[in-house]
Amino acid sequence: MNKEYILVTGAAGFVGSAVANRLNSLGFNTITIDNLSTGEKEVIPSETLFIEGNLGEQNTINKLNDYTISAIFHIAGQSSGEISFENPSYDLQSNTESTLLLLKFAQENKIKHFIYASTMSVYGNQSVLPVVETTNPNPSSFYACGKLASENYLKIYTTLGINVVCLRLFNIYGPGQNMKNLKQGMLSIYLAQALNDSKIVVKGSVDRFRDFVYIDDVVEAFLKAYKYSETNSFGTFNICTNKPRYVYELLDNIKKNCDNLIDIEIIDGTPGDQFGIFGSNWKAKNELKWEPKVDFDEGVQKMISWAKNNI
Amino acid sequence: MNKEYILVTGAAGFVGSAVANRLNSLGFNTITIDNLSTGEKEVIPSETLFIEGNLGEQNTINKLNDYTISAIFHIAGQSSGEISFENPSYDLQSNTESTLLLLKFAQENKIKHFIYASTMSVYGNQSVLPVVETTNPNPSSFYACGKLASENYLKIYTTLGINVVCLRLFNIYGPGQNMKNLKQGMLSIYLAQALNDSKIVVKGSVDRFRDFVYIDDVVEAFLKAYKYSETNSFGTFNICTNKPRYVYELLDNIKKNCDNLIDIEIIDGTPGDQFGIFGSNWKAKNELKWEPKVDFDEGVQKMISWAKNNI
Repeated sequence: MNKEYILVTGAAGFVGSAVANRLNSLGFNTITIDNLSTGEKEVIPSETLFIEGNLGEQNTINKLNDYTISAIFHIAGQSSGEISFENPSYDLQSNTESTLLLLKFAQENKIKHFIYASTMSVYGNQSVLPVVETTNPNPSSFYACGKLASENYLKIYTTLGINVVCLRLFNIYGPGQNMKNLKQGMLSIYLAQALNDSKIVVKGSVDRFRDFVYIDDVVEAFLKAYKYSETNSFGTFNICTNKPRYVYELLDNIKKNCDNLIDIEIIDGTPGDQFGIFGSNWKAKNELKWEPKVDFDEGVQKMISWAKNNI
Repeated sequence: MNKEYILVTGAAGFVGSAVANRLNSLGFNTITIDNLSTGEKEVIPSETLFIEGNLGEQNTINKLNDYTISAIFHIAGQSSGEISFENPSYDLQSNTESTLLLLKFAQENKIKHFIYASTMSVYGNQSVLPVVETTNPNPSSFYACGKLASENYLKIYTTLGINVVCLRLFNIYGPGQNMKNLKQGMLSIYLAQALNDSKIVVKGSVDRFRDFVYIDDVVEAFLKAYKYSETNSFGTFNICTNKPRYVYELLDNIKKNCDNLIDIEIIDGTPGDQFGIFGSNWKAKNELKWEPKVDFDEGVQKMISWAKNNI
């Protein structure tokens, strides 16, 4: 019998590499596709088979035909709201066209499980918080539009025999986050600036707030989603902590944990940025049997310790 | 001063040609882009400048650089839910990528008005009817997903200086409908079958229902939307009649108005088809100052008379 693989797209990135690593450690064989546009080859776990290419192109997908794949964890994609404004078409290709092509591939190859890395950005600005999965989406960036479109496409494919779980990931942080990409990841951006320049440039108000979830908890959510997809045809889940954390809290935390004196400069926000959001994880707790384990202060400390050695 | 044009995409199609015609008769200069994939060259009004090409390709959009354009009526696109299942990627390119490229063109050329032909399909199956503009979309075809994504992209561009109106068009019918395309247009499909074959093949239950709106009323909605966009940055409107019409009513009406004896065969429905939908036009009446003028029975009679001479 052929060796079976789980396809983890984007394993050269922060979340993809962590998920692939964990799957490897559990004894699964993993294969990845990544275009190395923001990810790095060294980040891909050594046990993971690597195909380099753009998922928005059929030629890349065709390279998968040599392998037996039992599940898809689609994590690759342009992941910066800010960059989506610079090139909306690239964002569409990277985040939506890729999903469509992978779904077609999954259907043709009778792959039953499709776990999708969606985002809290689909909610946009909302007057009622915390957001729940039934909140009417109000995307305010091209990135969010493309992710929401992918969710909708995925839902249709459940009628075509694929079991789908969409994880709406909130602000993920933790060791392994890309400290060189200054357009993605609030905590990693601030930390990189603090450690490199002793100065943090905050784009937008310090009263903005987010729901921060630790990388290990996110990886666990992917595993629970995979399990969920064995017996359910569709689910969408907020992966979050139920707690708003303000930008000023984050800044205080960084200042407290760094040895150097850090200046703060506040400039205009980025287009399409959400002012404040946090989510309810009630549904994830009840249906996915997932809940976050790592406390915010503990997580930030771990992240800072790691960052000091990896800058 | 340069001659100013209104760009009406898809003027080789049913709605696009009717809108361009009307704009021409009001003294506007019009220009169109159409790839003639389902439209026909002879349908394009003779006064309308014609550029042949795919709107999902930058090369086509670049051909507009020779003209001064004051407004965009984006009507072109793959318009069959059924076909969107055959080729989801083509649907995405035709309906969503095209919108993004046109929006970028509009922004670069400071075009202030963008009127978009969206669809009632974005609602999908809903338990509460009639649908209103705040009903949470639930797209059930790739076609609907792509149109909804376009709406979301358009809304973001209102923050970048473009005034946008999205018209959620319900089932449009009337003289000029393409009688050769048997995958788009419920009334035109049934009529073509009745007149050509004396047999109507109904895909799905005769208890399904739709909200039918006459082509002249739809054209009027585009004009009102253009006017609305002079003083408003964004609006989404149902263009419908508030009245459900059942498939069996339609069949009875056709039988009554055709001279030949007509057989009815009922087969399985098409994927992603909505069972029943009708909309509220309250918002269009109040804000757009639009309401439908043509009664269903009168409209169907006009359509059948026209079809008999154009089959």
